[in-house]
Formats: sequence, C-alpha cells, structure tokens
Amino acid sequence: MKNAILASTSTLHGQSYLEYLLPEVKKHFGDAGEVIFIPYARPGGISHDEYTRLVRDTFQPVGIQIKGLHEYKDPVEAIKGASGIFTGGGNTFLLVEKLYRNKVMSVLKETLLAGIPYLGTSAGTNIAGLSMQTTNDMPIIYPPSFHTLGLVPFNINPHYLDPDTNSTHKGETRETRIKEFHTLNTQPVVGLREGSWLEVRADKISLKGPLPARIFKVDEVPFELEPNGSLTHLN
Amino acid sequence: MKNAILASTSTLHGQSYLEYLLPEVKKHFGDAGEVIFIPYARPGGISHDEYTRLVRDTFQPVGIQIKGLHEYKDPVEAIKGASGIFTGGGNTFLLVEKLYRNKVMSVLKETLLAGIPYLGTSAGTNIAGLSMQTTNDMPIIYPPSFHTLGLVPFNINPHYLDPDTNSTHKGETRETRIKEFHTLNTQPVVGLREGSWLEVRADKISLKGPLPARIFKVDEVPFELEPNGSLTHLN
Repeated sequence: MKNAILASTSTLHGQSYLEYLLPEVKKHFGDAGEVIFIPYARPGGISHDEYTRLVRDTFQPVGIQIKGLHEYKDPVEAIKGASGIFTGGGNTFLLVEKLYRNKVMSVLKETLLAGIPYLGTSAGTNIAGLSMQTTNDMPIIYPPSFHTLGLVPFNINPHYLDPDTNSTHKGETRETRIKEFHTLNTQPVVGLREGSWLEVRADKISLKGPLPARIFKVDEVPFELEPNGSLTHLN
Repeated sequence: MKNAILASTSTLHGQSYLEYLLPEVKKHFGDAGEVIFIPYARPGGISHDEYTRLVRDTFQPVGIQIKGLHEYKDPVEAIKGASGIFTGGGNTFLLVEKLYRNKVMSVLKETLLAGIPYLGTSAGTNIAGLSMQTTNDMPIIYPPSFHTLGLVPFNINPHYLDPDTNSTHKGETRETRIKEFHTLNTQPVVGLREGSWLEVRADKISLKGPLPARIFKVDEVPFELEPNGSLTHLN
C-alpha cells in the first residue's frame, strides 16, 4: 500500500521553494495532520533547525503542520508513529549516513511500505530507489552502506540533465555516468528531469509533471517515457 | 622525494588523448624505461585491456613502454618494482575499490613517497589527495574507505567547472558541493581546471598549465591561484 510522491527537485528556476508542487502536496498529505520532516541532507550545510523552518513556513499556508525529525528524542519511535513523512534534498551521502546512524533506515522502509504518505525531493527521492548509487552528490561523508529504501524496484537519478551538445568540458555527461553504473549494476535507472515526479500508489508507479523521463536499462538503448506513462513494470 | 604530475584531465576538447601533456610526460618518465599503467578506473566501462592499449599506443611514439597492472600476476610486487606509474581517469569509486581490494593502495603510497615518478589524470589525480571525497563521479561501487594516497596535503577536485551563470538547472554547482564538503571536512580543496596540472617535486607543489586554479579553504572565501603559483604551504 505504498503512497509516495518522489520529485526530482524541490524548486524550479524562478519559483519559490516547492511552489510548483504545493497543490499536489496538499492533496497528498491532506488528512495527515502533522508531517515529520527529515532535514538530514542539509543542503549547502544549513542546520536542521533552519531547514525545518523553511519547510514549516512553506507548508503552513496549506494547513500542514511540520515537525523536524531531529526535534524528537527518539527518531525511530517518531517514524513509527508518523502520519506523513517528507525527506528534503541536499547531500545524499549525509542523508544516508544519518539515516543509518540513527537507525531510521529500516523503520522508515517499514513505515512507507505500510502506506504512510511520503514526499521526497532530490536526495529524499533518490533514497526511495534500490540504492543511492545514482546520486549526483559529492561523497562528503562515508555511509555504512549505499543500500536505500527500495520503495520502487529501480534506481532514480534526480535533477536529470541532458548532455550539453555545445560543451567543451571533458567531465562525464550524466548519461555516461549512468552507463558506467550499468557496467557493475543491473537495476534500471530513471532519469527524472526537474519538474517531474513519480507518483507511487499501492503497486502502481506513474510519471507526473510536464516532461518525459529518460529510462536506462542495462545493455539497452536509453528511451524516453512520456508524462503519465507507467513505470509499474520497470525492474 | 615525491615526483608527480597530477593533471585535471587526460584530454582537452578537440585534441587526442594526452596530446597537450605528452611533452611534459616524456620528460617526466624520461629514464623510467617501462611505466606501469593502472587501468582500474575503466572510463565508460571499457576493459583493462582496451584501456591499456589506448595508453600504450599513446606513449609508444615518445619511447615509453607501458604495461598494465592487471597483466602482472602480483600487483603488489609489480608496484614495489615499478620505475614509473600512471593512473588513468574513469570512475574514482571503482578505482579506489579495486586499489583496496588488490591491496595496492598502501604499497602505491610507499612507492610514490620514495620518489618513483607518477602521473595521474582525473581519477588518478583525485586519489593523490587526502581523500577521494571531492570526486565528481557516481558511487557505482562501495569502496572499503574514502581515504586515498595523501601525496599532497589537501583534496583535489579534477575537471573543476565554474558555475554557469545562464543555467536554470537547480542541481548544485561545483562550488556549492565543495562548500558542503567543508561543512564536514577541514582540508583545503584545489579546483583544478581542465588543462591545469600540479607538479610535485620533493616538498614543492606548483600549479602548471595556462589557467588559474580555484582554492577552497574551510570558512574562507575561495580564491584564484595563478599559473606557476605555489601550493607547497596549502594544508
């Protein structure tokens, strides 16, 4: 009975935080009352308090109350009792390290599999995949494992970026990086462009937002999935 | 008695492999006879044999013989007996995992500290820093540690890329990523642009090539170091 929104990014160019997604989020968390925010990914190194304040101020106008997971004495018990959970973006290595260190990873998985509404953006979306190994982030801390929630049977690459055909830079394109991932790993990868999100309802997974997603399967030519397309059988 | 060239990239736009650096490399390895090539980073997933062939064909015209480390029965003994070593670019996680798995990391460090000439490009340059944690690569495999050679007393970010001021993409800029690194780690980071390299001779470290490098120190405003500038006291 999964029930999740997994967004590529929290913020679109020229918009405020979560602006484009807020109507969707309001419906999603409608009856949840209070939502627990997981601020562990700390974008740009901001504190848990600062990050939670941003989210609280964003959700307040649509009637959703926010409490930061770091404000609970026992994060495991907090997750067990949650009626809605949002994990924000930032650094995926830091997020995963902290989820493991606080013993939250497995209870978070159980809670989400039980159907508690979940919202992820960026790093918070990446961890819904089988592993965090298609993150774009720097390994600023060493997590005890790269395995993540497996809420969907594939990996996600948030902020998916098409190759810049005018670039003279020799660093790898995103597509090359995902190809390298597939020399050692077999799960499909969903390249989720900014403005797109995955909607997970029970066993159905759909692509939402105005843009197609780019799908990478091992030993196959990547292809585009159109908006509202199904990812239910991608594994 | 360190003796190393640490290049940001192997290849410049519109040039062939190592073209811009070959005169320098010829001088560097001049008397080495045979150079051991470490192909573990496998760019784009190519095989150790393919990668070694590319390097062998590139070095042959300047009279440097290449043998791949994977061609030796005992890689540890091979490194101990090397008269020159080159580590090529590709995926840094894969490179570091394989160096640890084959027990090469510590003997490589000892060999380089003893003054055996070393060339690194991209991932092969990243591992000369204190840790691999300022890599740009995807974590396609889980290495037993992020610690690397520490041939220089700081971290290196190869393929350093200035922020694109016209971009509407919300993924983090390189500078933001390095700032996040500095919320958890204290060593300086050298952002090495493509076409630049570090020359390490005994205890002296200099920036070479036509471009400045961008230097990041914890809690300080980043600054530019001009070509031929010294990094000897950066730590």
